[in-house]
Amino acid sequence: MASSPNAELSVPFGFSRTSSLRRSGRKRHTFAAHIRQQLNDQLKCLEIKLETEVCIVTELQEFFRRRAEVEQEYARNLDKLVKSMITRHRAEKQKQEQWATMSTSACWKHLLGITRKQSQDHQSVAEIYSNHMVSRLAEIMDNSQRIFRKCRDIGAESHEDMMKVLNELQSAMKTYHIYQ
Amino acid sequence: MASSPNAELSVPFGFSRTSSLRRSGRKRHTFAAHIRQQLNDQLKCLEIKLETEVCIVTELQEFFRRRAEVEQEYARNLDKLVKSMITRHRAEKQKQEQWATMSTSACWKHLLGITRKQSQDHQSVAEIYSNHMVSRLAEIMDNSQRIFRKCRDIGAESHEDMMKVLNELQSAMKTYHIYQ
Repeated sequence: MASSPNAELSVPFGFSRTSSLRRSGRKRHTFAAHIRQQLNDQLKCLEIKLETEVCIVTELQEFFRRRAEVEQEYARNLDKLVKSMITRHRAEKQKQEQWATMSTSACWKHLLGITRKQSQDHQSVAEIYSNHMVSRLAEIMDNSQRIFRKCRDIGAESHEDMMKVLNELQSAMKTYHIYQ
Repeated sequence: MASSPNAELSVPFGFSRTSSLRRSGRKRHTFAAHIRQQLNDQLKCLEIKLETEVCIVTELQEFFRRRAEVEQEYARNLDKLVKSMITRHRAEKQKQEQWATMSTSACWKHLLGITRKQSQDHQSVAEIYSNHMVSRLAEIMDNSQRIFRKCRDIGAESHEDMMKVLNELQSAMKTYHIYQ
């Protein structure tokens, strides 16, 4: 994105032709405005880059927010499943005594234990997604914006310097041609 | 469960006292009925054991059926999330071009890819649970029932043998006491 104005800048409009400086004041003014336009385009590119980055990170945030909801629902469903199985089992006292001696009952209990653990794990993942990930991405966005502001300021400053030097050069060339 | 009638059988009612065989025909009949009752209790225990096992395996089947539903819903939600993110992205053509050059965009794409893979994995797990696990548990139930029937037949047969030998023993004792 940023390469196109740079490429244009490397061969600035009419700069290679020394005759251009001999042209009228209006033309000289147009030339300076053109250079300034290109420098401004550079800054504009930087801004677009920031906007795109913020847009992607916002999308990532949205993804993690919605993913957290999916994880939370999954965790809730697993927990509900375990609880309903235990409630069904507890409702029949007689069953409990009969079940105690069976090895399949141990297997059943283990299965419920695993499922409860999975439910807790997905609950934790949901929290990590909805809190840590989202705030971490917000931090990234802040950083990008801070970096952008710094880059823009440095860019604007150097552009001012360049314009100043360019004006000086134009004056020098003018004087040179007058005394030539 | 099965140990209690066994323990009773090891010291059968009135069997240790030799005088018992001298008692009236009614008492001898009661004694034989008592033994038969204990043997039948043994078979009853076997039946209760089968019922408990079938009950647990049915519960496991129910668990896997409902777990499959939970997995399927999770897979569906993950897939829906990925699709909605892609649809949102596709709706804005301009965005696509801007995003192409950003490294965060690659990260976003990778994340969607992982999520889609997870959705497919959980869909597979749901199918395994609802089809393979449930039918495998049905097989286990069938096996238990077949084993039970075989055990019950062998038990009943050996009980008949025992009762026959007991009757013969009683007759022999009676004859012995007559000729004593």
